[in-house]
Amino acid sequence: MTYCVGLHLDEGLVLLSDTRTNAGVDHISTFSKMHVVAEPGERIIVLMSAGNLALTQTVVNHVTEGFDSQVMGGTATLSSVPTMFKAAQMTGEAIRDVFMSDGEAMQAQNVPFDLSILLAGQIAGRRMRLFHIYSAGNFIEATADTPFLQIGEHKYGKPILDRAVTAQTSLSDGVKLALISMDSTLRSNLTVGLPVDLLIYRRDSLEVGLQRRITEEDDYFHMIRDSWSDALRAAYRSIPAPPWV
Amino acid sequence: MTYCVGLHLDEGLVLLSDTRTNAGVDHISTFSKMHVVAEPGERIIVLMSAGNLALTQTVVNHVTEGFDSQVMGGTATLSSVPTMFKAAQMTGEAIRDVFMSDGEAMQAQNVPFDLSILLAGQIAGRRMRLFHIYSAGNFIEATADTPFLQIGEHKYGKPILDRAVTAQTSLSDGVKLALISMDSTLRSNLTVGLPVDLLIYRRDSLEVGLQRRITEEDDYFHMIRDSWSDALRAAYRSIPAPPWV
Repeated sequence: MTYCVGLHLDEGLVLLSDTRTNAGVDHISTFSKMHVVAEPGERIIVLMSAGNLALTQTVVNHVTEGFDSQVMGGTATLSSVPTMFKAAQMTGEAIRDVFMSDGEAMQAQNVPFDLSILLAGQIAGRRMRLFHIYSAGNFIEATADTPFLQIGEHKYGKPILDRAVTAQTSLSDGVKLALISMDSTLRSNLTVGLPVDLLIYRRDSLEVGLQRRITEEDDYFHMIRDSWSDALRAAYRSIPAPPWV
Repeated sequence: MTYCVGLHLDEGLVLLSDTRTNAGVDHISTFSKMHVVAEPGERIIVLMSAGNLALTQTVVNHVTEGFDSQVMGGTATLSSVPTMFKAAQMTGEAIRDVFMSDGEAMQAQNVPFDLSILLAGQIAGRRMRLFHIYSAGNFIEATADTPFLQIGEHKYGKPILDRAVTAQTSLSDGVKLALISMDSTLRSNLTVGLPVDLLIYRRDSLEVGLQRRITEEDDYFHMIRDSWSDALRAAYRSIPAPPWV
């Protein structure tokens, strides 16, 4: 399993992904699920993936090393695509390409064709965007009404985002909320695990604001884990008791 | 979908279930999922159900009106069963009975045999217990290490329970926490809906402590919804900003 979350805020993007992959509970590995295409001043594109690792790695290879794209009318990569919308289309096309090559053999062995991708970034002269691309290659985009998107094990970490994230949330608060959301997921699903990869992008900066791997030893994440448990307990204690108990 | 939660506390039981059933998003109804067998001074048994309504209603009919039980060596109901363990065994047997009669026809139409049950209560002279019974008729029991059990859409409402519920939690706090857990679920899954049914049982009392239907108009639940959102926002704001943003 995996948990990745992207916040599309007025100030910029907060992107966070875990690194655990598993084939059964007795085969657990660490793979980064965050892939960054950075050409400072020109483009920052970040791809986060969930699902079957063989599939997602192949898709990432397609869009970073190049594949024959109908959308682009020839060989294309995320380094050459002219817009974020085209980047999403092209990534969807890469997924369909992998489905054409691997789908039938997987189906023959009852392995589901299971992957999803968050694609976010900005290209010079264009606006910052965040997409969720499905295993069929189609996609949706974050908007001011729904400024965050999640893939993988999304349920445990959703209530805090539902209640606290708006487009006006600051990058600093966004980082806090994404880490709280990740912590809730880590606690409840063993197949989501540390370290986690964090990337912050400030709108229109066209450079990576911060890219940080957060490990077991990270003081700030430790503090969040402890403080959040304490804060939650204090929060429920602050609510008056039911009058009818 | 459904969400039911049971807390097995030193002071007693807190049991909470929603009432929404749906067959697709355009066919939504209200059915109580909480069934109470109360013989004050002798037994209180509460059954909460999730899954296919046709299945769960049939199982409830079996265990309340009687069916031919091998476990009991004849016709048996929750009113006559001598122990909570036997009650769980008998309910599991009723599920298997329904699987024998309906399973094949459902499979022929690709309808999953999907149900689960929380069974809780106490019988005079014996201890208070809480079980989670699976669709195969087998079951697990809440213990001091894991004092709560959930069925249905359990993920959204789990983080707060994971962090705050212990066997020493008071009944009053247990009610608050169960309602907060339900509220998180209601907000995130439209197929879980108000009203909700709450039952409180004080250990060794052998009577229903409180049974209450909580509707849209319930002042206390309104207050919880508002206060909890505010408390969560205050909680994350109380955490220091990341030093590296």
